Amino acid sequence: MTTPATHGATAAGPADSPTGGPARGPAGASLLVRAATGRPGPYPPVWFMRQAGRSLPEYRALREGSSMLDACRTPDLITEITLQPVRRHGVDAAIFFSDIVVPLVATGVGVDIVPGVGPVVDEPIRDRAAVERLRPLTPDDVPYITEAVRTLTRELGSTPLIGFAGAPFTLASYLVEGGPSRDHARTKALMHDDPSLWHALLERIGGIARTYLAVQIDAGASAVQLFDSWAGALSLADYTEFVLPHSRAVLEPLAGSVPRIHFGVGTGELLVAMRGAGADVVGVDWRVSLDEAARRLGPGAIVQGNLDPALLSASWPVVERAVRRVVAQGRAADGHIFNLGHGVPPDTDPEVLTRIVELVHSLA
Amino acid sequence: MTTPATHGATAAGPADSPTGGPARGPAGASLLVRAATGRPGPYPPVWFMRQAGRSLPEYRALREGSSMLDACRTPDLITEITLQPVRRHGVDAAIFFSDIVVPLVATGVGVDIVPGVGPVVDEPIRDRAAVERLRPLTPDDVPYITEAVRTLTRELGSTPLIGFAGAPFTLASYLVEGGPSRDHARTKALMHDDPSLWHALLERIGGIARTYLAVQIDAGASAVQLFDSWAGALSLADYTEFVLPHSRAVLEPLAGSVPRIHFGVGTGELLVAMRGAGADVVGVDWRVSLDEAARRLGPGAIVQGNLDPALLSASWPVVERAVRRVVAQGRAADGHIFNLGHGVPPDTDPEVLTRIVELVHSLA
Repeated sequence: MTTPATHGATAAGPADSPTGGPARGPAGASLLVRAATGRPGPYPPVWFMRQAGRSLPEYRALREGSSMLDACRTPDLITEITLQPVRRHGVDAAIFFSDIVVPLVATGVGVDIVPGVGPVVDEPIRDRAAVERLRPLTPDDVPYITEAVRTLTRELGSTPLIGFAGAPFTLASYLVEGGPSRDHARTKALMHDDPSLWHALLERIGGIARTYLAVQIDAGASAVQLFDSWAGALSLADYTEFVLPHSRAVLEPLAGSVPRIHFGVGTGELLVAMRGAGADVVGVDWRVSLDEAARRLGPGAIVQGNLDPALLSASWPVVERAVRRVVAQGRAADGHIFNLGHGVPPDTDPEVLTRIVELVHSLA
Repeated sequence: MTTPATHGATAAGPADSPTGGPARGPAGASLLVRAATGRPGPYPPVWFMRQAGRSLPEYRALREGSSMLDACRTPDLITEITLQPVRRHGVDAAIFFSDIVVPLVATGVGVDIVPGVGPVVDEPIRDRAAVERLRPLTPDDVPYITEAVRTLTRELGSTPLIGFAGAPFTLASYLVEGGPSRDHARTKALMHDDPSLWHALLERIGGIARTYLAVQIDAGASAVQLFDSWAGALSLADYTEFVLPHSRAVLEPLAGSVPRIHFGVGTGELLVAMRGAGADVVGVDWRVSLDEAARRLGPGAIVQGNLDPALLSASWPVVERAVRRVVAQGRAADGHIFNLGHGVPPDTDPEVLTRIVELVHSLA
């Protein structure tokens, strides 16, 4: 892959910015984009899933009095929250502050994010009529996203911004179950009982996710990550038949624009399939070592991960040893972006994250 | 492995029954024991994890007014609850009705089972003094277990009874965290921060689990299953260093007594290591197909599993297709015990389970 070009990323048609945002140039030479395109620098770039969030006191202060959904639709809040961990930790990338349900809400789906619970859907989607009420997302539905990304890419300068969306399966699980689910039983029953309805649902959700990412790319994001948080609940056979085509429909049209990272938890069995869905970079949780992940993925593998977030509460020597091991194992791949194997736990001491960034940067 | 012999199974010394319980003979020729020892019958034996439990109306009726812990210490209730699914579904094995914390409680650890939550520990165990307060289990601590197993093996006749215990890691996670945990962060921090304390803790818990299984074997159980429900949260490296030796210390002394089944959820990366811990039969969740599990385990692999329990709420044709696929894939192993990939969900229609048993029995 060559230096990213932005135009044409919007699913709805060519982008209105002819040659990419003002920040695309410097961020295109960033360690993150280099690692993601198989041209690694002296050390792996570092960022943390959920780096913008509850582990930071400045985040908790800023969020006081605003709901999650309101924060995700307010450009000033999005911008400030996205920048906080970059300033504090010196990470090598910003991750766009949003929630996977934001684009659904923008198309009129009734969803609230309930603190301590997660997304709760007013009317679960389980029949044809409900699926047909889902309408496509257009860039005009999310002007606050375009505005926030533009501001961010300007403010971030040479630090790349990673755009963000939830993958079709994970979004579908929330919509079908009506909220978070441990076993995804209704979702799995629906996919098997009525494959035609299932595929219609995922096509619509996939279109929404694709546009949501395209809007962020058009406004200047240097990379995107598609989160399929729950994909690890599926067997490879179910993933391949019911999910992969829809994740591919999100990621493939973005080929040649910016690097595409694809991540799920507990997806050791799915890594090759997830790469096949159009991932330039495959996110790996802590259960599979990065050298083993690289072996499974084969030549040209580029991986992201995979420090066990549970270790962030251990003593520093334990963390240091684990970080060094992750970096060493990542050398087996053709590119490595250092990250956790899942999101930052809310009770993490942010000092530890800062020290990890410094440590990885010292491992040239 | 030859026909099981019971004597000597009790970790504390030779068993008091010289030649095995009265039911050992006929149950020793059961399909379950045959499959578990590499001498498969015409079709795979079937049982379901959590078959004795909330999916059965007769269970809910019987449990009314008694706490989970009380039920697990009352021989009449244990016996009746264990027999209910055998009568109703015609499964090929009974699983001893108990809870993994029962042997801990029997040694004086303060634990309650809170409905809707799970085990909650009065004083989490996180330091040397707390570890040293854990004392060994003796058969005299659990007379109700011996009594219930004896009654059951008599009542069950040729249907084998599977004994039951929680594995050291899963028990340790409850004790260290103080209750159920999603990320096991304190547990993982402890194992890495203070390996000596960790190993001391797991040695004691392992001794308790070993004795708990031995008591059941001495009283007549035809097989045992060691549940390491949470092991799938660990990387292979952590499992191998911090858990495997302790699971092995539970299972190895039982070699040559009865078949030992070892199961955890999300353990695709750990199957070979779990076999190495002394499992005659490796339980597999639905994420890894049984033919792939057999391939990973290599020659002589005997597997248990692995219908996705989420599919139990799908329509019958979907269930039937999935059951047939599991049976077909299980033929790749040298022995296969049909089961779900995890426990029966509480809202399962029990009729579906009965039909599954009939279907598997028809697939000779």
